[in-house]
Amino acid sequence: MSATNTVFIGKKPVMNYVLACLTLYQNGANEVTIKARGRSISTAVDTAEILRKRFSTDVQVKEIRIDTEQVKDSETGATSNVSSIEILLKK
Amino acid sequence: MSATNTVFIGKKPVMNYVLACLTLYQNGANEVTIKARGRSISTAVDTAEILRKRFSTDVQVKEIRIDTEQVKDSETGATSNVSSIEILLKK
Repeated sequence: MSATNTVFIGKKPVMNYVLACLTLYQNGANEVTIKARGRSISTAVDTAEILRKRFSTDVQVKEIRIDTEQVKDSETGATSNVSSIEILLKK
Repeated sequence: MSATNTVFIGKKPVMNYVLACLTLYQNGANEVTIKARGRSISTAVDTAEILRKRFSTDVQVKEIRIDTEQVKDSETGATSNVSSIEILLKK
């Protein structure tokens, strides 16, 4: 799977990310990975659920991985742990 | 798996839920399910990650399920969709 088939979830409205996934499928992708960290994790789940329940009923959750990433604060230099999620969706 | 081995994530500090999971394991549980809805989903992932990275390195993620639940507003009577997550941890 190429890196271009990944949608990173941030703080935008959830429909932006649903649209990003739909665009990837439209361009011929079979698998799309949704990635998020910290508070955006719930938006990642929202994106996957809206996509497969409302738009593409042929999209299925293939795998969900959770992990911990170390994030370094650019101002203080302190590192902190943040949870992350990867939701792999296939058509 | 009995229903008593489920930890529901709400708005309390994440360590409360980590402690709840540890207590279940202490009482002999082999599998613990963490459930959350909406904005609490990221706290559910935090709970699982803190538990297996910092406290019980023998705890593994067995399965993660995401779904959509219908929630009815008790005041307006309107139903809305909310995402949910279930993280199944085994020892």
